[in-house]
Amino acid sequence: MPDAGLMPSVPAPLAGLVERFGPAGRVPGLVVICEHSSNALPVDRPDLGGDLGIPAATHASHAAWDIGALGLARGLAARMGAEGGAVLVHAPLSRLVYDLNRAPDHPAAMPAHSEVHEIPGNRGLSGAQRLARVEAVYRPFHATLADVIAGIMAQGVRPVLIGVHSFTPVFHGQPRAVEFGVIHDDDPSLSLAVVAAAAGSGLVTRLNEPYSAAGDVTHTIRLHAVPCRLANTMLEVRNDLIADGPAQQAMAVRLAPVLQRAIAAAGARACAS
Amino acid sequence: MPDAGLMPSVPAPLAGLVERFGPAGRVPGLVVICEHSSNALPVDRPDLGGDLGIPAATHASHAAWDIGALGLARGLAARMGAEGGAVLVHAPLSRLVYDLNRAPDHPAAMPAHSEVHEIPGNRGLSGAQRLARVEAVYRPFHATLADVIAGIMAQGVRPVLIGVHSFTPVFHGQPRAVEFGVIHDDDPSLSLAVVAAAAGSGLVTRLNEPYSAAGDVTHTIRLHAVPCRLANTMLEVRNDLIADGPAQQAMAVRLAPVLQRAIAAAGARACAS
Repeated sequence: MPDAGLMPSVPAPLAGLVERFGPAGRVPGLVVICEHSSNALPVDRPDLGGDLGIPAATHASHAAWDIGALGLARGLAARMGAEGGAVLVHAPLSRLVYDLNRAPDHPAAMPAHSEVHEIPGNRGLSGAQRLARVEAVYRPFHATLADVIAGIMAQGVRPVLIGVHSFTPVFHGQPRAVEFGVIHDDDPSLSLAVVAAAAGSGLVTRLNEPYSAAGDVTHTIRLHAVPCRLANTMLEVRNDLIADGPAQQAMAVRLAPVLQRAIAAAGARACAS
Repeated sequence: MPDAGLMPSVPAPLAGLVERFGPAGRVPGLVVICEHSSNALPVDRPDLGGDLGIPAATHASHAAWDIGALGLARGLAARMGAEGGAVLVHAPLSRLVYDLNRAPDHPAAMPAHSEVHEIPGNRGLSGAQRLARVEAVYRPFHATLADVIAGIMAQGVRPVLIGVHSFTPVFHGQPRAVEFGVIHDDDPSLSLAVVAAAAGSGLVTRLNEPYSAAGDVTHTIRLHAVPCRLANTMLEVRNDLIADGPAQQAMAVRLAPVLQRAIAAAGARACAS
């Protein structure tokens, strides 16, 4: 660990949560990532912002988490990893505590405002307060994810990385027509293949909508896929299409074959060979 | 932590070693990295290769470590961080156990041969043996380094990253004329500035010699600098010029102002503003 002056010790880091799918003993070829899976608040940790002072409506809204994303991510990992194995890594806390898909110096990492929502507990954070959240939430999550990926690579498999997100159908009062967004960072190959494979899915599919890497929304991909050139893509599903468990499972059934065709077409290896 | 099946627990991970320089309470603007600082072998850890079965000559050679690099790195961090602060992160073990500047699936990460040296303890490693070293050596080092960098960024400073390496004057029987190599990855700006600033240093200076990013020697930069676009460069000094403590200090005195001029010229911020 770094010395105490630089990184003061915070008890009980809130590491990434890991779930495995597929046959035991197989080195998994797929890592599904869900950074915005949870709207949990560290209510017993005032040092991490506690309940952030937000009303119930904000806590339940897309500002606090990607509604439906965890169920969809689980469904995709279970289906796509049934033979080759998959690992799902998801978050223990709301992105309003720390947005795990943003760098520590990004203004949106601990936002005081999010769309129409105010986050009182994030106003005027000191350097020490930001550091406490980085040490307790951001670094443990990304260390867990890096452990998983490095462990797979050490055993000779180059995993495909898929980020699963959702977005609100109405943003700042404007309805969004896109249903399925596919976002890429510096290597568009798998994302382009996903868009092509989604042609028959019946979903209104767009590349780099409603967000793109230009908005710094690909931090996790930059940290974990780009350095070793692992095949990757980031999915955004409109959250009214995955509002409950059955809808999430139906979407997983719909998207898993799309993604599997895309991985095959892009030449990426989704399972241990 | 990931589940036990994917990442079996290894006791006593050998984390990166951290040293601070400069005024207390200052958020440091410089991170010096020395992945090949040590030739220590995990003699009491047969699960990590023990003494690797290498003869004393190999253990003392450049194959096991970057001779002189740690002393130079300390001298640079002390001088360059005297006002703005600096952190040095270096390795606890020889690169023959795990080369921290290589990805877990890279052939040179745990090499069975290195230049003219045979490494018996690295022959025919199983996936489980590779995984044990990745979990005990590679991941803890890079987690420490990432903790340091994220902790700095959380407090509003974007640190400059400088890797310090050395190379052998004779490689596969061929003498090398270059004395000071400056290696870049995707962003050459600081490296180009270092080469320009070294013009009056009297050192035979070359860009991307004796190695370049095309040889995958920039793994650490790709992991830690590129994702957040931190200013970075990787230095290679011929090890006959830094063979003992006084020579290492003399080289630090010679190179520190070169690097400080380069940082200023490249517009990078080397200390907290």
